[in-house]
Amino acid sequence: MFYHDNELQYEVEVEEPDPYYAKMLQEGIGGIEGEMRVALQYMFQAFGTPKSKAKYRDLLMETAMEEFGHVEMYATAITKNLQGAPQSIIDEIAHDSPLISMMMEGGQPRQALSAGLHGLATDANGVPFNGNYIIASGNLAADMYANIAAEATGRQLACRLYEITDDEGMKDMLSYLIARDTMHQNQWHAVLEDLGETMPVPASFPEEKENQEFNYQFMSTFREEREDPGERWTQGTSIDGKGEFSYGFQPGGGTGIVEEAAAEMYNEASSQGGDKSIDDESVDES
Amino acid sequence: MFYHDNELQYEVEVEEPDPYYAKMLQEGIGGIEGEMRVALQYMFQAFGTPKSKAKYRDLLMETAMEEFGHVEMYATAITKNLQGAPQSIIDEIAHDSPLISMMMEGGQPRQALSAGLHGLATDANGVPFNGNYIIASGNLAADMYANIAAEATGRQLACRLYEITDDEGMKDMLSYLIARDTMHQNQWHAVLEDLGETMPVPASFPEEKENQEFNYQFMSTFREEREDPGERWTQGTSIDGKGEFSYGFQPGGGTGIVEEAAAEMYNEASSQGGDKSIDDESVDES
Amino acid sequence: MFYHDNELQYEVEVEEPDPYYAKMLQEGIGGIEGEMRVALQYMFQAFGTPKSKAKYRDLLMETAMEEFGHVEMYATAITKNLQGAPQSIIDEIAHDSPLISMMMEGGQPRQALSAGLHGLATDANGVPFNGNYIIASGNLAADMYANIAAEATGRQLACRLYEITDDEGMKDMLSYLIARDTMHQNQWHAVLEDLGETMPVPASFPEEKENQEFNYQFMSTFREEREDPGERWTQGTSIDGKGEFSYGFQPGGGTGIVEEAAAEMYNEASSQGGDKSIDDESVDES
Amino acid sequence: MFYHDNELQYEVEVEEPDPYYAKMLQEGIGGIEGEMRVALQYMFQAFGTPKSKAKYRDLLMETAMEEFGHVEMYATAITKNLQGAPQSIIDEIAHDSPLISMMMEGGQPRQALSAGLHGLATDANGVPFNGNYIIASGNLAADMYANIAAEATGRQLACRLYEITDDEGMKDMLSYLIARDTMHQNQWHAVLEDLGETMPVPASFPEEKENQEFNYQFMSTFREEREDPGERWTQGTSIDGKGEFSYGFQPGGGTGIVEEAAAEMYNEASSQGGDKSIDDESVDES
Amino acid sequence: MFYHDNELQYEVEVEEPDPYYAKMLQEGIGGIEGEMRVALQYMFQAFGTPKSKAKYRDLLMETAMEEFGHVEMYATAITKNLQGAPQSIIDEIAHDSPLISMMMEGGQPRQALSAGLHGLATDANGVPFNGNYIIASGNLAADMYANIAAEATGRQLACRLYEITDDEGMKDMLSYLIARDTMHQNQWHAVLEDLGETMPVPASFPEEKENQEFNYQFMSTFREEREDPGERWTQGTSIDGKGEFSYGFQPGGGTGIVEEAAAEMYNEASSQGGDKSIDDESVDES
Amino acid sequence: MFYHDNELQYEVEVEEPDPYYAKMLQEGIGGIEGEMRVALQYMFQAFGTPKSKAKYRDLLMETAMEEFGHVEMYATAITKNLQGAPQSIIDEIAHDSPLISMMMEGGQPRQALSAGLHGLATDANGVPFNGNYIIASGNLAADMYANIAAEATGRQLACRLYEITDDEGMKDMLSYLIARDTMHQNQWHAVLEDLGETMPVPASFPEEKENQEFNYQFMSTFREEREDPGERWTQGTSIDGKGEFSYGFQPGGGTGIVEEAAAEMYNEASSQGGDKSIDDESVDES
Repeated sequence: MFYHDNELQYEVEVEEPDPYYAKMLQEGIGGIEGEMRVALQYMFQAFGTPKSKAKYRDLLMETAMEEFGHVEMYATAITKNLQGAPQSIIDEIAHDSPLISMMMEGGQPRQALSAGLHGLATDANGVPFNGNYIIASGNLAADMYANIAAEATGRQLACRLYEITDDEGMKDMLSYLIARDTMHQNQWHAVLEDLGETMPVPASFPEEKENQEFNYQFMSTFREEREDPGERWTQGTSIDGKGEFSYGFQPGGGTGIVEEAAAEMYNEASSQGGDKSIDDESVDES
Repeated sequence: MFYHDNELQYEVEVEEPDPYYAKMLQEGIGGIEGEMRVALQYMFQAFGTPKSKAKYRDLLMETAMEEFGHVEMYATAITKNLQGAPQSIIDEIAHDSPLISMMMEGGQPRQALSAGLHGLATDANGVPFNGNYIIASGNLAADMYANIAAEATGRQLACRLYEITDDEGMKDMLSYLIARDTMHQNQWHAVLEDLGETMPVPASFPEEKENQEFNYQFMSTFREEREDPGERWTQGTSIDGKGEFSYGFQPGGGTGIVEEAAAEMYNEASSQGGDKSIDDESVDES
Repeated sequence: MFYHDNELQYEVEVEEPDPYYAKMLQEGIGGIEGEMRVALQYMFQAFGTPKSKAKYRDLLMETAMEEFGHVEMYATAITKNLQGAPQSIIDEIAHDSPLISMMMEGGQPRQALSAGLHGLATDANGVPFNGNYIIASGNLAADMYANIAAEATGRQLACRLYEITDDEGMKDMLSYLIARDTMHQNQWHAVLEDLGETMPVPASFPEEKENQEFNYQFMSTFREEREDPGERWTQGTSIDGKGEFSYGFQPGGGTGIVEEAAAEMYNEASSQGGDKSIDDESVDES
Repeated sequence: MFYHDNELQYEVEVEEPDPYYAKMLQEGIGGIEGEMRVALQYMFQAFGTPKSKAKYRDLLMETAMEEFGHVEMYATAITKNLQGAPQSIIDEIAHDSPLISMMMEGGQPRQALSAGLHGLATDANGVPFNGNYIIASGNLAADMYANIAAEATGRQLACRLYEITDDEGMKDMLSYLIARDTMHQNQWHAVLEDLGETMPVPASFPEEKENQEFNYQFMSTFREEREDPGERWTQGTSIDGKGEFSYGFQPGGGTGIVEEAAAEMYNEASSQGGDKSIDDESVDES
Repeated sequence: MFYHDNELQYEVEVEEPDPYYAKMLQEGIGGIEGEMRVALQYMFQAFGTPKSKAKYRDLLMETAMEEFGHVEMYATAITKNLQGAPQSIIDEIAHDSPLISMMMEGGQPRQALSAGLHGLATDANGVPFNGNYIIASGNLAADMYANIAAEATGRQLACRLYEITDDEGMKDMLSYLIARDTMHQNQWHAVLEDLGETMPVPASFPEEKENQEFNYQFMSTFREEREDPGERWTQGTSIDGKGEFSYGFQPGGGTGIVEEAAAEMYNEASSQGGDKSIDDESVDES
Repeated sequence: MFYHDNELQYEVEVEEPDPYYAKMLQEGIGGIEGEMRVALQYMFQAFGTPKSKAKYRDLLMETAMEEFGHVEMYATAITKNLQGAPQSIIDEIAHDSPLISMMMEGGQPRQALSAGLHGLATDANGVPFNGNYIIASGNLAADMYANIAAEATGRQLACRLYEITDDEGMKDMLSYLIARDTMHQNQWHAVLEDLGETMPVPASFPEEKENQEFNYQFMSTFREEREDPGERWTQGTSIDGKGEFSYGFQPGGGTGIVEEAAAEMYNEASSQGGDKSIDDESVDES
C-alpha cells in the first residue's frame, strides 16, 4: 500500500514563467516517454512479479514511487510556468493580459480551459495518456528492455527540454531528472546482468521448437538482390552466442490469396455474382 | 519507394479453423507487441536516419519490409481460421451455424461485422492500433532499445500463441516468426555494439551537466527506511562503467504546494472567498 | 434547434432476449459504420453548409435527425435483448442466473458493469465512439462520397446482423433499417447528380496546377515490372472524362535520406560521434 | 513525494479462480469508474490546490494514496482469479487446459497474451485507460462533484461485481471497497459543506453577468408544446435559493446558416460554381 | 424520435473574427466538459430510464435536445470566428493572408485542413470526442451526480471562455450558456431532492453487506502517522446521517505478492530458472 | 511480401524550411485523410479479397505500395521543413534559436520532443493514427466508396496544403500528389464500373427482405411538417433505378421506454423504491 508526505522529491523553481514551456513540459507527464508511463509501468510490473523474484518486485515498486514523485515535480513546474508570478503580477492579469494571449496563441488550450492553469494527464501535443503505453509482460527480461527503452527516450526528452530553456530553475530540475534516468538505465541493465542468460527473450522457449533455418539470417528486402554488405549483423557469431549471422532473402511460401467468406457476410460486390471477374493469371503466385 | 509480389514470405496453413484463435491472432497484427507496430516503427526510424548513418537506415527499412510481410501472414492466418474450411463446409454455414455461434459467443465481433470474416487493424482485445505506439526518437541508440523491447514482447506473444494452439500449421508459422524475432533481437543488439559507447542514452549529453550526486544512487522509497540490501544495483561499478552504485533515499526539496491561479480562471470554489479555509499548519512542509 | 417526442421511429420488438446479440448490436450504435457516426456526421456537415447551398443543409439536417432515431432504436433493441424478459423471469434472475453467466462468458462486460444492462456509446468490440470518425470536410462532393461509404458499410452491417439472428422482431427492425440505408445511398447519389460535375473532388482546383503527367496513369508497384493487363483502369477514357488512362511505373525522384538534425536534439547515438559509421555506397542512390 | 510498503491495504483472497471474473474485475482498474481514475484524479486535483486551501490538498492526496492501494488490490484479485490455483493444478495446465480454453472463449485475451495472466491498465471491455477521464478543473467545488460522481459510479460497479460472484473471498474484498466508497462519497460531500456556498459552480462568476432571463427556466423541447407538468424543477424556489424555477421553451435566435469559406479551402463542390443551388425560401429563418 | 427547425436556440454573433478563439471554442463542442458530452449523456441516460421513472426520462431527453442546440451554437460561433468576415474581407484572403497565417501559427490545424474553416468533433487540444466520456450508469442518482459534475465543469469552461474574449457577441452567447448551466445544475439537484434518500449511491445495496468497520473512517496515508486534524470529514455525523466519521489508518492485510503463472506463459526471464533469485526476507509481509 | 529501394517516388524539395508548415503536413501522414490510412486500407482490403477477384486484389496491393511511397514523401517533407537548412544555419541554432522558438510557439511539440525534428504517426492536431480509420469491409463495392471518399478528402487536404504555402518545392510535390489522387478517384470508380450493378451496397441482399414501404422515401424530420420540395431526392426514379423517390415523414412505432433491469444491477436510485415516482401520463406514448 502507499504513502506520501508533503515535500517534493527535489526542488522545483521557475525564474521566469513561460506558458510555451509549460506546454512542452506536458510531455514529461503524459507522453509515452513521460513519468506517468514509467510510474505505472513499474507498478504493474511489480504487481505481476511472483514470490520467487521478490527482490525484483521490491526494486520495481521502489522506483515506481520515485517516478510518481517526478510526475509531481513536472506538475509543479507546469503550474509555476503558468502562474508562478508574484501576486502583484497576477493582479495585473486581466483582459488583454499577456498570459492569456500567450495561452491562446501557442499554449496548450486545455491547461487553461480544463485545468485552470495547471498540468493535465496529456502529452505535449495535448493527447491524453493511454493505458496501453504500459508494458508489463509478465517476463522480467522483456520488461527490463521495455524499461531501458522508456528511460532512454525519457532521458532524451529531458535533455531536449533542458536545451530549449534558459531558465536556471528548470535546468536544475532537469539536471536532477536526467541524473535519475542515468541511474534507472543502469539499474535495469543491472537486473539483466543479475538474471543471467536471458537472450533471446523469452529464454525459456525451447530452441529446437523455433525454425533453425531462419533464426540468425539477416533477410534483405531490397528490390534488387544485393550482396552481403559484411556488417556486424550479417556475419560472425550472433550476439546471444547461440548462432552464426548469415545473409539471405525472404524465402517465399505460397500465396496469401484467400477463399471466399460465407455468403451470409454479403461480401459479394455485385448483383451479378463474382464469376465474371476471375482473372486466372493473376492468381498464380509468381 | 515500395514494391510487392504475390507470394507470402512463409507458408501459412491452418488445419482446423478456429474462430477463437483468430481473435487471439489479432494481437499479432494491431497489438502494441504486434507486427504493424514494428513495421511502422522501423519505417519511421528509417525516415529519420541521416546520411551519415545510411547503413542503419538501410537495415531499418529492410526489416520494416520484412515485418509488413508478417502482417500479411497474420492476416492470412486469421482469415484461414475464420473461413478456411472447404466450400462444402462453407455451404453448410447457414443459420445456427457453428461458425456464427462461435463468433457471437467468444469471437471478436468486428472480425465478422466490420470485416466479413477477415482480420482488422486491432489487437486481441479489439482495440485499434494507435500511432503513438511507434517510437522513432531520432536517436539510434534509444530506438534500438525500443526495438529490442518490441521484439522481446513480440517473441513472447508468438511463444504464447504457439502454446495455446494444437494446430500444426499454426505452430509451423509461429516457429518461423519466433525465429525471426530471435534474429531481430540479435540484429538490434548488433547495432548497439556497432555504434560503440552509447550509455547512458543519449550519450552526447555532457556528463557535467547532469546532477552528479544522484546519477548512480539507488533511491529507496520504502516507508520505513531499510538497510542497503547489497544488490547489483546498490553496490559496485555501474553498468556503464562511469560511476559507483550507492544506496540512499529521496532527498526532498521544498513544497509542491502552488500559488493561486489568476482570478479569471474562476478557480475559487465558494462565493465567500477562500480565506476561511487556510490551514496554516498543513502548509508547512514536513 | 432540436425537438423530440416519445415514440420510436419504428417498432422494436424482441421475441427471445439474447445477450450475445446485444453485444453485436453495439456496432450499430458506436461503430465506425454505426448510427452515431452518420447522425453526427450529417449534423456537422449541415453546420458547415453555407447559405448558397441551403437546400443541401436542410437535407443533411433532416437525415441527421432520422439517424438519431436509429440510435434510439438500436439502444432499445439492446436493452430488450439484455432484459426484455417479463417480470416473472427477471425475478428468477439471481445468482447463477443464465443472463449473468452469458454476460460474463461472452457478453460485452460494460453493458452490465457500466450501464446496468443497457447500451453504450461503443462498438461491438467495446471500443468507444471516436469523434474523428466524423467526416465533414466543408466540400459537399467529398462529403457525399463519405456519406455513401458510410451508408454502404452501414447497410452491410445491418445485413450481417440480419443474417446472424433468427428473432423475427429483430429481423423486422433490421429490414426497416436496411431499407433506410437503401434510400440514403440513393439520396446522397442524387445530391451528386444535382451538384453537376464534381470529379475529381474538389472540382474547383485548377487542372493546370496538377501534374499532368501522372494524373491518369496507373502506377504498378509489382517487384518485377509487368505488362499492362489491359484493365478498365489502365486503358481508355478516364471515368471523369478528362483524360486517358495509361499504365506505368513509379517515376522515382532522388533520395529520401535526410540531413542531420540540430545537435540540441541529442540525436547522436554514440559518444564517439557519428563519423565512423558512414557507409558511402549505401548513400548514393539512383 | 511517495512511499510504499509490501502489505496490501486489505486482504484479497480468491476461493475458486475464475478467468471470466478476472475480466470483469478489469473495470475496477482501468474503467472510467475504476481506481486508476480516482487515484490519479485526486492526485492531479491535489497538484492544483493552492496554499490557501492546503487542508483540502492534504485530504485529496491522502485519498489518492488509498486509491492506489485499491488498484493494487484489484490487480492482485485478477492474478488470483487467473492463476491462484495451487501448484498441483498449475502443473496440470498444459494443452487443452481448461484455463486456456476459458481464456480463449470468454476471457480478456490480452490478460494472457500481453500480461502473462495478470491485470492490465484497461477496462473490462479491454479498452485502455484514458488520461482524459481525469477531471481536475482547478475549482474545488467542481472537482468535488466530479469526485462524488466517480465514487457513486465506482460503488455501483463494486456492487455489481459483488452480485455476480459467489466467491466469499471476492465478496469480502468488495464489501471493504464498497464501504470505502461510502466513506469517500461522504467525505467529498463534507468538503462541499465545509466550503460553504458553492452553487452554482463556479460560485465566483458575477451573477449579473449571466443571462437573468434563462437561468432558472426549465426549457421544454418536446415537439408539441406541452403544459408545465408542475415538477420540482419547473416551479418553486431553485435549489441554490437564488431564483424561482419556471417553465418555458427554446427562445430561438436567428439562423445558424453560415457564410461561405474562403475560396482557398476548395469547399466548392462543383466545377460549375454554387449559384444554381440557392434555395431562397429555405434560408429564411422561420 | 427527433426533429429540428432552422433557427438557432439563441443568437450567435461575432464582432471581430478570431481564429485563436475558434480553437478555444472547440472545448465547448468535443471536450469532456463540452456540449456533445452532455447531449449524448442525457440521451443515453434517457434510453436507460424505465417506465416507472418516465417523468425523469422526459426530463433527460428534453435537456438532451437543448444541449444539441448548444452544440449548434458553438459550431456556428467557430465558423463565424474563422470566416464570419464580410465578403469584401474574404476576397482579400489570399496568399499570405492574415487568416491563414494565424491558422498556421496558433490555430487548430484541422479546423482548416479537415473542415474547411469549420468546427470539428474535437476538444480545444484537437483530441476527438470519446464515447467513454458518456456516463449513463442505469442508476438515476449516480447519473445525477455525473450530470451535476458535467454542468459544473461545463459552466467553469464557459466562464473561462467568457473571460478570455472581449467580443460582445461572444460574451452575450456565453452569458446565455452560463445561465443554462446554472439552470441545469439546479434541475439535476432537484431530481436528487425529488428522488428522496439516495446516499450512498446506490442506495439499494444492503448496508449490512458493506464492511461496517471502515465505511465512515477517514483513512490517513501520510507517511508519519498524524493526529486527527478534527475536520468535518474526520469527526461528527456523516453527511448521509447513517454513521459517525472517525480517523484512522490503512488496516493492512497480507501480501500482494503473487504466485507464478503457468509455464506456458513463458514468464521465466532466464534460461537458468528462477531459483537463484529468491530473496526470502523480502517475501515476508511485514 | 514487400520490397523497397532507396529512391523517393517523386522529388521532395523545400526552398524555405517552415516549422509551421511541417505541423500542417502531419495531416498528410497520420490524419484520417492521410496516406497511412489509404496505404493500410488498401493493404487490408487486398488481404481480404478472394481468389475469384484476384485482379482487384492486385490493384489494391499495387496502390497500397504507392501510398506508402507518399507517406515517405510527406515524412521527408516534414524533416526538410524542420531542419532542411544547410549546416551553417544549423550550427547557429542554439539558445534563442528561431527554430526552437517557432517550435515552442506554434509548432507541433512532439515533432521536436519525441522525434528529434522528424515526422510522427499523428495528424496535424497531434492526434495519433487510429487503426479504426481503416475500412476493409470484405465487400469490394463498399470498399470502393470508402476509397473514393478517402481520395476525395485526401485530394481536398492536398489542395489546401498547396494553397497555404508559397514554397515552390512543396507546391511541386503537392501538384504530384494531387494528380495521383485524381488518378485514384478515377481508378476506384473504374472498379465500380467493372463490377457491374452494385447498388444498393451490398447488392446481394435479397430486395424482398428489405422493407419495401420505406426504401425510396425521403423522410422529413422538420418540426412543422412541410410540403415536398420537389427535389431530385424526393421525386422521380431513384438513382439505382429500382424504385421511385417519394416524400414522407417518420412513421412512428411504439415507445422506446424500457422495462426495469434486474435488481442485481442496483439501478434503483433511492432507498425508498421507485414506486412513488411513477408518472402514468408521461408513459403513454405520443
